[in-house]
Amino acid sequence: MFQKIFENVRKNCPLIHNITNYVTVNDCANIVIACGAAPIMADDKDEVAEITTICSGLNINIGTLNSRTIASMLIAGKQANMLNHPIVLDPVGAGASKLRTDTAMQLLEEVRFSVIRGNISEIKTLASGSGTTKGVDADVADKVTEENLGDVIAFAKAFAKKTGAVIAITGAIDIVADSNTAYCIRNGHPMMSSITGTGCQLSAMTAAFVTANPDHPLQAVAAAVAAMGYAGEVAHSRLNQMDGNATYRNYIIDAIYHMTPEMLAKGAKYEVR
Amino acid sequence: MFQKIFENVRKNCPLIHNITNYVTVNDCANIVIACGAAPIMADDKDEVAEITTICSGLNINIGTLNSRTIASMLIAGKQANMLNHPIVLDPVGAGASKLRTDTAMQLLEEVRFSVIRGNISEIKTLASGSGTTKGVDADVADKVTEENLGDVIAFAKAFAKKTGAVIAITGAIDIVADSNTAYCIRNGHPMMSSITGTGCQLSAMTAAFVTANPDHPLQAVAAAVAAMGYAGEVAHSRLNQMDGNATYRNYIIDAIYHMTPEMLAKGAKYEVR
Amino acid sequence: MFQKIFENVRKNCPLIHNITNYVTVNDCANIVIACGAAPIMADDKDEVAEITTICSGLNINIGTLNSRTIASMLIAGKQANMLNHPIVLDPVGAGASKLRTDTAMQLLEEVRFSVIRGNISEIKTLASGSGTTKGVDADVADKVTEENLGDVIAFAKAFAKKTGAVIAITGAIDIVADSNTAYCIRNGHPMMSSITGTGCQLSAMTAAFVTANPDHPLQAVAAAVAAMGYAGEVAHSRLNQMDGNATYRNYIIDAIYHMTPEMLAKGAKYEVR
Repeated sequence: MFQKIFENVRKNCPLIHNITNYVTVNDCANIVIACGAAPIMADDKDEVAEITTICSGLNINIGTLNSRTIASMLIAGKQANMLNHPIVLDPVGAGASKLRTDTAMQLLEEVRFSVIRGNISEIKTLASGSGTTKGVDADVADKVTEENLGDVIAFAKAFAKKTGAVIAITGAIDIVADSNTAYCIRNGHPMMSSITGTGCQLSAMTAAFVTANPDHPLQAVAAAVAAMGYAGEVAHSRLNQMDGNATYRNYIIDAIYHMTPEMLAKGAKYEVR
Repeated sequence: MFQKIFENVRKNCPLIHNITNYVTVNDCANIVIACGAAPIMADDKDEVAEITTICSGLNINIGTLNSRTIASMLIAGKQANMLNHPIVLDPVGAGASKLRTDTAMQLLEEVRFSVIRGNISEIKTLASGSGTTKGVDADVADKVTEENLGDVIAFAKAFAKKTGAVIAITGAIDIVADSNTAYCIRNGHPMMSSITGTGCQLSAMTAAFVTANPDHPLQAVAAAVAAMGYAGEVAHSRLNQMDGNATYRNYIIDAIYHMTPEMLAKGAKYEVR
Repeated sequence: MFQKIFENVRKNCPLIHNITNYVTVNDCANIVIACGAAPIMADDKDEVAEITTICSGLNINIGTLNSRTIASMLIAGKQANMLNHPIVLDPVGAGASKLRTDTAMQLLEEVRFSVIRGNISEIKTLASGSGTTKGVDADVADKVTEENLGDVIAFAKAFAKKTGAVIAITGAIDIVADSNTAYCIRNGHPMMSSITGTGCQLSAMTAAFVTANPDHPLQAVAAAVAAMGYAGEVAHSRLNQMDGNATYRNYIIDAIYHMTPEMLAKGAKYEVR
């Protein structure tokens, strides 16, 4: 299934509109290209409806939101909804400030998302409407472990049911769930958390995967999450003893560039629950 | 000729003011340094006239334009015109939204550009005043081939005559033309289109080349275009089987860093028509 | 001493709020992670006070300032002062435009900084209240040499006394001074000036070092400056003959990632005056 999904990305080359933060935007663009899709970044309210219209999917990331771009996110989201384009929400830092939490909640109210991808603290914040995240990383208290995995899966399914979106909670163990089914994905490498923006990159790539596979959103998100984690493994295996997080960042994008659908199908490690 | 032109860049080390997008801005800065010039990025309306004044050349890129920066582009452009500084326009995505097309057209009306560099779809949009580009990549229907090359050259010369600018249409075959003469440049590698922002980088570097060679704008643009393409070839020859577009991106800037004027003179592949 | 200071960074993992430019922001985030701290970038006036509150230190960089972010810098700075969080000021391009000079001066008046880090031209501009810098690089006339080193040290100490901040003047020779004591640091490599943003990266990392060592601000800044310079040496020793400034940029961050406190203690080259 993941093989076919990735084949569709490379075959369809969907154009993805990204309204995203300026910290990791370059990596987001390059990974979207690496997976076989095409990115366009545009965030002005006077053009986002048009840009979304010429694209096939939309990725909204609130990582460096401001009053100007929040308006653009709402406009683009509503336009994408009207056109039935898939939309990914990456609620970066939801819980770290009222502005982020409120913006994420407003987006959830006014826009129908296909996918919400974040760390466990961010997703918990969205589910409860308030939160206490410490910055853009997951809170230690929230950590997904083998012990609480069942609970987190149930939580993800319930939030998927409530929002109608596929929920992707990424961390050491990744959970991708709709209201009925959850993928637990065990790809990746701990060193990925030493790079800024692997989450942002994954959200952008997820938009490409979902857009190219409109009939299989759950599997498309799971495939994107597995691809990112597997790229982290492949990239890590290339590192020499002097290579650190900057080289690792490049190698992850390189690994997506060279990943074939067959490689993904073989490398993906997951169970369905 | 290209040798002398590149020597002048390294000798004069022109300071280039860039008003550019936040997607590829870091690469633009690093490639300007790599070629021997110095970049400064500044986009606030309250400082762009001053910043342009202390610089010797200006690069305007509309890749992530917004109402705040459009005003700055106009102010900086007019100031640069007053000071007779060369200005490069990179109309990223012209045709993809009314805002981009209108902004590019307004810039063309109110500012006198030395160079306009874009893909064929963007340049066609500027020439006709409207367009139908699909995102930031050239439309397939517009593709420059050996068959339509003569027509595209005639079009470039006519648009150069109309605007007074050197026109650089980059793609698989690059065309650099003033109203009388065109360079057809056949450097580069197809994988360059797998990196976000090679066009943006070229525009920034072109500003450096033109600024360091005020008496030879056509040749300076052709040299910059050839240098970028040749860097793409050199960088590609270094790639191992696991290196993808992220490593390639670094290697292209590295190749500019190590390129000597002699290497450029030997590596440039072009004909004059 | 530097060993203990770096150990504290890796042990405490301080969360650093960065209001910084969009040119080098990704490298700033990755180097903060590489040294053992955690970054968050946020620049909207409606969230910066909250974001600063959940962080332990603040880094303000005026590299691509605008009216929106200037307001945010002031709000965040005052909030950090109220909470007694250390704050680093990087006055990028002070002297290059009235807006930059005035903003830096206003920040100095309204916010109490723990550290001010810039090149000699930027720091001279702040000390005199006006300046004539040419872009974001130090003016040749201002260059710190063995001959004028004593004078520059005296200047740095006087400006430290006036501002109450540790002053870091970085260049071929780095000077880090409070009102009584100066570290002259002779790490680094000339090729570091071929990368955009090594100064910005250092400022972000300095915020991490100072935050993790509240009782030793002078030594913390000196350790950060030495770490950056030493990373430049280590990274340079890895370069092959085709590696240029783009690869070098990655290797410097990699070198910080792999640097141990012991390595820093051994590699740091400095005298105290």
